[in-house]
Amino acid sequence: MKLVGAALFVAFVVPHVNALSQQKGLDWESRFRSLTNKENIRENDKRLSARPHHLGSPYDKENAEWILARFKEWGFDAKIETFNVLSPTPKERFLEMVGPTTFTAKLKEPTIQGDPTSDQQSEQLPTFNAYSVDGNVTAPLVYVNYGIPGDYDELERQGISVKGTIVIARYGASWRGIKPKVAAEHGAIGCIIYSDPRDDGFFQGDVFPKGAYRNKDGVQRGSVLDMPIYPGDPLTPGVGATKNAKRLDLNDVKVFTKIPVLPISYGDAQPLLENLEGPVAPESWRGALPITYHIGPGPAKVHLKVTFNWDLKPVHDVIAKITGAVYPDEWVIRGNHQDAWVNGAEDPISGISAELEEARVLGELLKQGWKPKRTIIYCAWDGEEEGLLGSTEWVETHADELAQKAVLYINSDSNGRGFLGASGSHTLEKFINGVARAIQDPEKGMSVWKRSQLLQISKARSPEDRAEIRRRPDLRIGALGSGSDYTAFIDHLGIASLDLGYGGEDGGGIYHSVYDDFYWYTHFSDKDFGYGQALAQTGGTAILRFADADLLPFDFGGFTETIQRYLSELKKLQSSMREEICERDKEIEEGVFTAISDPQKSSVPPSREELPPYLNFAPLDNAVEKLSRSTERFEEDLNKLKQAGNNSLNGNALRKLNRQLMMSERTLTSPEGLPGRPWFRHMVYAPGMYTGYGVKTIPGVREAIEQKQWKEADDQIVRAALIFENEATLIDSASADIEKASESHSGN
Amino acid sequence: MKLVGAALFVAFVVPHVNALSQQKGLDWESRFRSLTNKENIRENDKRLSARPHHLGSPYDKENAEWILARFKEWGFDAKIETFNVLSPTPKERFLEMVGPTTFTAKLKEPTIQGDPTSDQQSEQLPTFNAYSVDGNVTAPLVYVNYGIPGDYDELERQGISVKGTIVIARYGASWRGIKPKVAAEHGAIGCIIYSDPRDDGFFQGDVFPKGAYRNKDGVQRGSVLDMPIYPGDPLTPGVGATKNAKRLDLNDVKVFTKIPVLPISYGDAQPLLENLEGPVAPESWRGALPITYHIGPGPAKVHLKVTFNWDLKPVHDVIAKITGAVYPDEWVIRGNHQDAWVNGAEDPISGISAELEEARVLGELLKQGWKPKRTIIYCAWDGEEEGLLGSTEWVETHADELAQKAVLYINSDSNGRGFLGASGSHTLEKFINGVARAIQDPEKGMSVWKRSQLLQISKARSPEDRAEIRRRPDLRIGALGSGSDYTAFIDHLGIASLDLGYGGEDGGGIYHSVYDDFYWYTHFSDKDFGYGQALAQTGGTAILRFADADLLPFDFGGFTETIQRYLSELKKLQSSMREEICERDKEIEEGVFTAISDPQKSSVPPSREELPPYLNFAPLDNAVEKLSRSTERFEEDLNKLKQAGNNSLNGNALRKLNRQLMMSERTLTSPEGLPGRPWFRHMVYAPGMYTGYGVKTIPGVREAIEQKQWKEADDQIVRAALIFENEATLIDSASADIEKASESHSGN
Repeated sequence: MKLVGAALFVAFVVPHVNALSQQKGLDWESRFRSLTNKENIRENDKRLSARPHHLGSPYDKENAEWILARFKEWGFDAKIETFNVLSPTPKERFLEMVGPTTFTAKLKEPTIQGDPTSDQQSEQLPTFNAYSVDGNVTAPLVYVNYGIPGDYDELERQGISVKGTIVIARYGASWRGIKPKVAAEHGAIGCIIYSDPRDDGFFQGDVFPKGAYRNKDGVQRGSVLDMPIYPGDPLTPGVGATKNAKRLDLNDVKVFTKIPVLPISYGDAQPLLENLEGPVAPESWRGALPITYHIGPGPAKVHLKVTFNWDLKPVHDVIAKITGAVYPDEWVIRGNHQDAWVNGAEDPISGISAELEEARVLGELLKQGWKPKRTIIYCAWDGEEEGLLGSTEWVETHADELAQKAVLYINSDSNGRGFLGASGSHTLEKFINGVARAIQDPEKGMSVWKRSQLLQISKARSPEDRAEIRRRPDLRIGALGSGSDYTAFIDHLGIASLDLGYGGEDGGGIYHSVYDDFYWYTHFSDKDFGYGQALAQTGGTAILRFADADLLPFDFGGFTETIQRYLSELKKLQSSMREEICERDKEIEEGVFTAISDPQKSSVPPSREELPPYLNFAPLDNAVEKLSRSTERFEEDLNKLKQAGNNSLNGNALRKLNRQLMMSERTLTSPEGLPGRPWFRHMVYAPGMYTGYGVKTIPGVREAIEQKQWKEADDQIVRAALIFENEATLIDSASADIEKASESHSGN
Repeated sequence: MKLVGAALFVAFVVPHVNALSQQKGLDWESRFRSLTNKENIRENDKRLSARPHHLGSPYDKENAEWILARFKEWGFDAKIETFNVLSPTPKERFLEMVGPTTFTAKLKEPTIQGDPTSDQQSEQLPTFNAYSVDGNVTAPLVYVNYGIPGDYDELERQGISVKGTIVIARYGASWRGIKPKVAAEHGAIGCIIYSDPRDDGFFQGDVFPKGAYRNKDGVQRGSVLDMPIYPGDPLTPGVGATKNAKRLDLNDVKVFTKIPVLPISYGDAQPLLENLEGPVAPESWRGALPITYHIGPGPAKVHLKVTFNWDLKPVHDVIAKITGAVYPDEWVIRGNHQDAWVNGAEDPISGISAELEEARVLGELLKQGWKPKRTIIYCAWDGEEEGLLGSTEWVETHADELAQKAVLYINSDSNGRGFLGASGSHTLEKFINGVARAIQDPEKGMSVWKRSQLLQISKARSPEDRAEIRRRPDLRIGALGSGSDYTAFIDHLGIASLDLGYGGEDGGGIYHSVYDDFYWYTHFSDKDFGYGQALAQTGGTAILRFADADLLPFDFGGFTETIQRYLSELKKLQSSMREEICERDKEIEEGVFTAISDPQKSSVPPSREELPPYLNFAPLDNAVEKLSRSTERFEEDLNKLKQAGNNSLNGNALRKLNRQLMMSERTLTSPEGLPGRPWFRHMVYAPGMYTGYGVKTIPGVREAIEQKQWKEADDQIVRAALIFENEATLIDSASADIEKASESHSGN
């Protein structure tokens, strides 16, 4: 579902306690990496993307069965778990302009000569947005830029209301599901989303098939389920969509859109946009179509009709296990989805193809005598595109067991050419940096860590940032929002997670279109699957290290430092909002807005606003200080332990310590969850209510401030503080155990 | 020639020594303002723009004679001064693409139905760039963005040379003459300049005739004379182009382009740009045409042929005088050009129409008994568009007398709707702020000063800037670069100058095209000439205050503060260049550029550069400190004088003091002029060698640093320091005279 982001990063020393075990670990690791073969990844990609294979399609099932067979062949204990989920598909799709001139949208991606899979029209899903409600509306059109809340503030300043209109928003700046959500909140009765060539088309580069970018007929399909409330099957929130699960009535579902939505190409959008009058759109709103962008409303008047088959469909998750030899009840999980909107050679097949190569090589190691200490589970998710259905239902179904056993989840979702991108739990920052130092970049004679570091140096925004990148042993990793299958693991259950992928040299515009296929991928992306191999090496090395580590390689130093930064950000957010409102009120009083407005253009000056109160950040300040002291103590204890060498911790002590480390991410969750969305239980990371994919860190507090809910912000500060105090307590308990074990050892 | 810039600003108390005289002055001022009539300005604009009237055309001469008759009618002592200048006009213009497909450029602006003057094709000058050399070249095409030096650095990083190619540059980011100059320096053999719709076309707003903006056939004519070397007639640098002046041989002229140049529309540019391959242009290079912008070279190959009639043409300047009653040898001069590229209802007729209304009302005041103390000279310049020909030749012809007598030059050049823009000598900053406080904005119930201040508050980039705008009694004015008729006055002779005009709500795209006509102006710009009246009130009030002041209203406080700022800027420029080079060298050493380059794209890493030396800023530090002390002393003396009331200075002392004030701008010049361009004698303000219109302050030092000429920079610091010491000496001498006069007075 998600394209690889820009969050770049990367460990220095993996805190393996047992030096001997570490050495052996590295042997298996090197062997693992040298056994990966990019040709296999190519063959996987070719096979899995050969036909359209969306949720519920014949080839989706065929692929699941093929993957199952491979896992079994490689020695995994594998099975398919099937869930029954609500997955609407289009019955009618109709968009026409009824005035001032008429035009009927094509809503069709044509076959491209030379591209052998683009003609599989009988199997292709048409262009649509999943979980749009049925609708049949006719109304004047309004252009709302990206359709995010700030755009509606601008409309208000221009005196334009979208009430009773159909809005047309361009893709970008937020996850697509935000656009109809915000439009409906402002009274719109329909929503069209189009790919503007400025962001996703000829402005960026030559279009397909000459080049990699979106052509005028390409359409971005995609889900518009209100996933910031809960992802997964809309009918079974919080529980697995098993055969006999209790299901909501369709009318009681809160996560469908409120208004009908349809995605279109820029070829279809241009006639509509050309027929808007009213104010010229602000400069930052203008795209690359050869027109003057106006806002409207109208005169373009459009008729939009969409209806759907509201059917249950089977989701086929492939789950493959190697049981751990020492700690079978500690699970290291790896996943990537296998369903696609159409052929999906990039999204997601480039990712699952690498994951399968990892699994093949792990199978090879098994044959060579390797036995992982922990249980390894490889997953191929289905129904990710509609709303993370396969992974969410599996997690919800196995929630109790996962809460007890899951150590780590490593996700990928598509892959490309370029630089390693890594996001995840900050307790894993040092770990994944270490992995990245072990992987060679296939284009350059250096590690992917080094290449990322040098990229970050070149992109640093200030000399201070640049100095930090040069000095800090680890590159920072991004926090996880949503948009892929880690969501249920980290956000619902608090399982430490990572999301990995390569990109940055693989620009293109075929996302969620029929042109995301093997022809495109092998002409414009990671053509020889060299980065596919790098991803298999990265994912596999991470799995091996975690599965075989004596002491689990979680680290609290980078985590605590990151939390300190988030706290500073929150304070700065609050103070800059104060300053902004104070300044704006002053300018209203001075008459700035009336003085500078052009009398020949309509504009509405902003209204005076109450100055926000000062918030009580003291609970967070105290909790983060406590966390910081606990982290220091733990790091000192760990250092002493390492210096003491082997066998400092006996089996039981180690097992207990590992259990505490495993629970450190769980401790960051709260059973009540976030305000208004109890499914989201992580108190540090969540997708934003109005960003969709984009993360909000310490989300309870941050979103309360952003939405100017001052009382709520004060309450959420107390809740977040409690979480960090609990985390500090857990870390202190781990330290006490190490200290006790060391004493008893040195006492011997 | 020049569109009104964005430099906004504005006096507090005019230091009139004689309170009685001030009162009388204000009476005449108010009367002046109330007698201005916008209907007259409309009639002037309609008459003067009724037919094409470029230099040498029949209607240009008719207009000069009509203006002469008006001045005479209003009681001015007026005449036409004629010079003979080199003014090439097109003989052949031809541009075709010869491969990979063929296309012949239209090079023609069609008649627009409903626009009654756009069909005067027999009188219209075709689209061309004046002072391009003759040429006939065929070569592959390269897109060079704006064609400024930084763009060639980017080409170098991409491994692309323009040697032997024809470049196509878009208008913008520099004065147009810079583009062929820099292209030729890099080995190009031809230059095409086009108006990209991103900067000047449908991206900005609806195109003419539906809207105000440039349509696909509109072309920007304009001069490409190398004016940063010297403006005016190319054959007579530094002397008036009188009938018998000694003229250079055409082959000895240094200010023609080195390669043929032709401007084209975006309609003509699109087929050429569409046929470029090679790298995709960097994002900031991409315009609004519906294509993927590539750099080339080729495969588009173009054939460009331009030849010209290299004829002398008569320039008709209208010069109209009211002799001063008290100080006839102190001249206050006002000017605006009257020639246009075609009809020029905006450029320049909107400006000269307001100036003529000023003259009419001054004539009215004369009839009512007003007698200005100083001589007032109103000018209507010819041949501005080709290279400031009329004003430069007049100034060069009368240089000796002007150096003795000129107190002030006030320029305008076009006018629009919106906010007052003012640039000029910083000794006039307080003065023009005072004028602006006296003018009412025609749209809002406030002074144009207040409206400008509120605009600046809304646009301030930092809280510090905003606080300054609120606190500082005067708004800052911009420094003068070039592009209009003040150039010879300030830059060649050191006559304190101002450039005034309204704009900011008058967006459009008819600059230097046939569509800059009365129809366009009255539909899209200052439709009812309300701001034409405001300009007449602003210019007239300024002229009246200066002509009638007892003590000339120069002020050194704002000037000295501005010089201090320039000095800080120079130091910052030097230190940031050091830091930048130091960082880049470090990144080269670290391998950043090779690590991050995409192996599938060609790129050349930058070369290591020597670290610039520290410069010796001490001479400037010392001189500016001296200037600062002198300014403080003068301000104290002036305050005491004001407190002492009337008659503190007798006639001779006042005359001597005024003479010193008058010479304060002259003192900022150096007879040797700037390095490589002796015509430019002002040591504080000059147009940039590589900006053309854009100002470089303390240009000797600044351009030496920018061009990494470190020895030269140290030398220029010494030269600039001397100028500020001389200025301080002049101010001290004025202070000594005031002190002496006051003592002798109090001694009585």
